[in-house]
Order: sequence, then structure tokens, then C-alpha cells
Amino acid sequence: MQKSAIDNIMTRVSVRHFTGEKISDEQLEQLLRCAMAAPSAMNKQPWEFLVVSDEDMLMRLDEEFPYSRCGNGAAVAIIPCGNLQRAISTMPDFWVNDLSAATENILLAAHAMGLGAVWTGVHPNPERAQKLQELLGLPAHIVPLCIVPVGIPAEQPEIKDKWDADRIHYNAF
Amino acid sequence: MQKSAIDNIMTRVSVRHFTGEKISDEQLEQLLRCAMAAPSAMNKQPWEFLVVSDEDMLMRLDEEFPYSRCGNGAAVAIIPCGNLQRAISTMPDFWVNDLSAATENILLAAHAMGLGAVWTGVHPNPERAQKLQELLGLPAHIVPLCIVPVGIPAEQPEIKDKWDADRIHYNAF
Repeated sequence: MQKSAIDNIMTRVSVRHFTGEKISDEQLEQLLRCAMAAPSAMNKQPWEFLVVSDEDMLMRLDEEFPYSRCGNGAAVAIIPCGNLQRAISTMPDFWVNDLSAATENILLAAHAMGLGAVWTGVHPNPERAQKLQELLGLPAHIVPLCIVPVGIPAEQPEIKDKWDADRIHYNAF
Repeated sequence: MQKSAIDNIMTRVSVRHFTGEKISDEQLEQLLRCAMAAPSAMNKQPWEFLVVSDEDMLMRLDEEFPYSRCGNGAAVAIIPCGNLQRAISTMPDFWVNDLSAATENILLAAHAMGLGAVWTGVHPNPERAQKLQELLGLPAHIVPLCIVPVGIPAEQPEIKDKWDADRIHYNAF
């Protein structure tokens, strides 16, 4: 088991083109179960997950956020959001760390299941976040972190080797 | 392979007590390879990783950041940092998302390898970040995200079931 979980981390790629086929309810639930298995500061679990499967809304997302690739045959778009009312009151911004861990879990789970996905950034760009809140009718305390289109891959991107030993520093910078 | 990567995500736990035994150089490198396999906004890879193995420094970390558990027998502490000089110039704060994904990869890889680890938060708490920068002699553009003690587990925490279907919203909040 150990080796394959690491292989999955090392071979994950960003997939931006999909076949247009749907994914099953079970696959979607598995992705979201993995998202909610993420750690969170003080175990606050300050998250909500929007799942966009409506074709018209996927096209609207694609128009308003062209880099989100929601019009490239994605089955759904998952939008991980921070719920500021569930965040740590004295340190609310830790929700970004928590939701980022949850998003990475979605990407890894999708890859493990033979699905494709890509993290397309929203927060901390305030214009993007506000536009997406308006489009989806989100209240002010629900802040979208990113848009993650998910679908059946229609491309096999090359795995990037990003290893750079110079980025490691022992006991001092 | 698919199933075991997901099992690894679903069974990861936060480990805060370690045996004091060392981990191998190969294990440490594997953790850091997984960290650098994370996605990053515009593929900027805006990261640096401090590895603290010096016993005196681990004790200093434990004194200054008691919640970091670096004095509980950890073999090393990995401190993922954002390098603001490598960040997106127009949207520098995306480094937090990138480094959080890298940190989640470290936690998952540690779990897959039978090691224990826990994410203990630093940024965006400015006092914690500044104190850690001073302790480690980090320049202002190197911002520590968190402290991750890693070691041989001396406890087997129960897996938390954090699934909550009410956190999922279809097409609208």
C-alpha cells in the first residue's frame, strides 16, 4: 500500500481537457470524502463544497473564468469554500490552509480514481472571489478558494519533475 | 493502486508523540520529493523547505512553539516556507495555497511510509511567523507556513470520521 500512495502523489498531473462523460455519484462522493478527511487548524473543518453539474452554470463559469476550463468537457466543477462562521475566531485566515489541504486531497483522489482535475485559483484574488460569490449566490461569509473541474481525462499530460535539492535547507537558511 | 492511495488519504491521522528514533535520509528525501510534486499557481513552485534535525534547535522550537510538539521525540521538523521572490508578482499571496498543498503531500507521504507527522500552524499568524523567522534566521521574503514534526509514531490516534453530507451544496448554496 505504502508505495502506491506515494506513486499517486508523484504522478498526479493537472488535467484541463475532458471527454464530456459524466462521473458517477459514488465517484463524486469519494472525492468529497477525501476532501473532508483533510486536517484543519484546531479541527474546525471550516469548509463547504459547491458541486456544479448544471450545464448552463458550467458554461457560465467557463465564460466568466476562462482559465477554469469548466467548458472543456468537465463532468462537474467542485468549488471548495471557506465558511468564515466556522473558522477560528481569533485567526480566521487559517481557513485558506485547511481548504488548500482539502483541495489537494480532491486532486489526489481524482488521480487515484483515473479521473482528471485541475486547481484553478480564485482566493486570494478579491475580484475573482467576489465575481464567483455573485455568480453562485454565495453569502459574504462563504469564500470560494478555487474552481476544480473534474471529468474523464481527454489528455495525458506529461508528469513534471519539479525536484530541486537546492530548495532544501538543513537547520538554517 | 487506486484504492490504496485513497485509503491512505482516508486513514491519515495527526501524530504528536514519537519514539525519538531517527528516520533515514531516503525517507526524508521521499517526503520532500512528494512536497515538491504539489501543484502551484502558474507552476511558480514558490517554496523552500527547512529541515531541522539539530537536537538543540528542535528543543528551541519546542520551547518557543510548544504546540509544535518538536520535543516529543520527533526525528526532524520540516518547515515549508513561501519564497516571496518566487511568488506570482501580481498575486503573491497564492503561495499560501501552494505551500499548503505541499504540506498535505508531506503528511500523506509520511502516513504512507509508516511515519507520523502533524501540521502545526504558523502563517497567517504574524507573531508566530516573525518569531520563527528570527529563530531560524530567515530573511523577510522567506515566510514559514507551518512546523511539521516527523518521526516514528509512539501513538496510534483514532481515525476521525469528519464526513458531513450537509457541507455539500449542489449548484447553489
